[in-house]
Amino acid sequence: MPAVDATDEFGTLDRLFRPLAHPVWGRGLTDDVGVVPSRPGHDLVLTKDAIVEGVHFLPDDPFDLVARKLLRVNLSDLAAKGAEPFGYLLACHWSSRCGWPAREAFAAGLAEDQAAFGLGLIGGDTVSTPGPASFSATLLGWAPRDGIVGRAGARPGDLVLVTGTIGDGGLGLQAAQGRLELERELAETLAARYRLPEPRLVFGAALPGRAHASADVSDGLAADAGRIAAASGVAIALDLGHLPLSAAARAWVDSRADPDAALAFLATAGDDYEIVLTCAPAAEAELMRAAAALHLRLTTVGRVTDGEGVSVTRWGRHLPLERQGWRHG
Amino acid sequence: MPAVDATDEFGTLDRLFRPLAHPVWGRGLTDDVGVVPSRPGHDLVLTKDAIVEGVHFLPDDPFDLVARKLLRVNLSDLAAKGAEPFGYLLACHWSSRCGWPAREAFAAGLAEDQAAFGLGLIGGDTVSTPGPASFSATLLGWAPRDGIVGRAGARPGDLVLVTGTIGDGGLGLQAAQGRLELERELAETLAARYRLPEPRLVFGAALPGRAHASADVSDGLAADAGRIAAASGVAIALDLGHLPLSAAARAWVDSRADPDAALAFLATAGDDYEIVLTCAPAAEAELMRAAAALHLRLTTVGRVTDGEGVSVTRWGRHLPLERQGWRHG
Repeated sequence: MPAVDATDEFGTLDRLFRPLAHPVWGRGLTDDVGVVPSRPGHDLVLTKDAIVEGVHFLPDDPFDLVARKLLRVNLSDLAAKGAEPFGYLLACHWSSRCGWPAREAFAAGLAEDQAAFGLGLIGGDTVSTPGPASFSATLLGWAPRDGIVGRAGARPGDLVLVTGTIGDGGLGLQAAQGRLELERELAETLAARYRLPEPRLVFGAALPGRAHASADVSDGLAADAGRIAAASGVAIALDLGHLPLSAAARAWVDSRADPDAALAFLATAGDDYEIVLTCAPAAEAELMRAAAALHLRLTTVGRVTDGEGVSVTRWGRHLPLERQGWRHG
Repeated sequence: MPAVDATDEFGTLDRLFRPLAHPVWGRGLTDDVGVVPSRPGHDLVLTKDAIVEGVHFLPDDPFDLVARKLLRVNLSDLAAKGAEPFGYLLACHWSSRCGWPAREAFAAGLAEDQAAFGLGLIGGDTVSTPGPASFSATLLGWAPRDGIVGRAGARPGDLVLVTGTIGDGGLGLQAAQGRLELERELAETLAARYRLPEPRLVFGAALPGRAHASADVSDGLAADAGRIAAASGVAIALDLGHLPLSAAARAWVDSRADPDAALAFLATAGDDYEIVLTCAPAAEAELMRAAAALHLRLTTVGRVTDGEGVSVTRWGRHLPLERQGWRHG
């Protein structure tokens, strides 16, 4: 154990976070603020998500993965808008169990994903709390001026596409909690997917000019498609017969007595951090090519119509959903 | 009680926070992100501070004051840099006692200070936690390009000036906890000062071009002056004989058996949210005039020399400090 009082927030700042500072804009984390110059022709895109122990991550999750998940759930928001991330501000609300080893692991996780995604730490705060640990990050990215893809642009006649596979996050949470009845290797794959989502940043950069609307799938496909529908003043129909499933999720569905209910669960489970988008039918092929070039699955799962709300069918039959998604509370 | 489930974060978002959205850049809080256009000739200045119930605010503090304090402790950082605030992102980690009335009060406090300081809500997240409530905000402001006043510019020969009065925050915390032996009216004045600091934004705008270094006094005058000294590679000598005191703090000092120890406490107590700055002697008069025009007290409390660290004297006698300041843990 190093001779550092882990309860000393200045020790944490000096030894763990200062090496993560953005080389210019973080000002060495020695000032009260970070300073980012204007980038001509670009907008700054900002998002801020918080995660709480016992709610958004599990009490025994390793802290390097918690740190990386914190960055990634925020990066997923930037990805869905086609923005290019460059930095972040961080608030750590350490619990009493966040001693020096936990903080070191957290900082190591940040360093790993900073390198992976081209980020620098711009500023933030570390405090201690008598409750469970929680964290928030404000992620910053650039987008060409007026170029981001919003939620409000879906038009009747659009197709609805989704990246990757759906439902792994929700199953992965159950697997991580030891509640999933599935072959051990498959369960571990799903748990890893829950703990470490993959923000679709490179594909997201292909959205501007091609997608009419997009969002990240954080609260469940039906819920996030529903928010696109609400913001755009349209209806969205999803066909769960086309829901893209991982091998592990497929094995789980096949093991269930009621496949309709199983698919409905996957379409309403959270933590996928894929991108759901709408586009004109003419843009579908180009987006498919962009995804294929990245070896990224992209699946057409529905369409946009006049009306409101989200409806879900499977082979033409309407499926009632108990809820549209997981509301991270 | 309105027919809204206070545990529903979307109800909170829709009914309480959407009316606070920045008219353009908050995108109605219906998207995953906020989008801020570049401002030619300006830098974006960012700061992020977190507050925790039982650590940075008291469990029985009214939630409208908690919200306003959250904004103000962050605004104080922008003020010390001479930046002009325009917006913020917010993370609310609600505890189980944050029912609808508490959330309404919190939103009302935000609305009041948004109007007072010209802010709009750009984005954020609300989550619930099984622990105590905590909050963080990322404040955004503009500064003329390369124009902010950092911590690292203090030079030997500079004077050290401080706005307002020092020690009221620390005494106010004791008063709010019922631990301060002082006439009730004075104690209430100090408690109010603790609960609702006054960020020195208008005066802060006068700093660029006049001050060599500045910081806000959040962790105690000695500690924050010490950080200027460390960042600048200089020493700072403070004379507590010149420490600016409110009438209430003066009454408290006069009631103490050991005035040296009392002054040392005030110079190391936190939560003042004043500005400590250094400037060339030739700039002192101009800064005094700028403060006087705002009816803001500005006091010369020390000077910058070669060396390192902070030393504290009173009428020429050296005072040993047990600690330089309050380290918000």
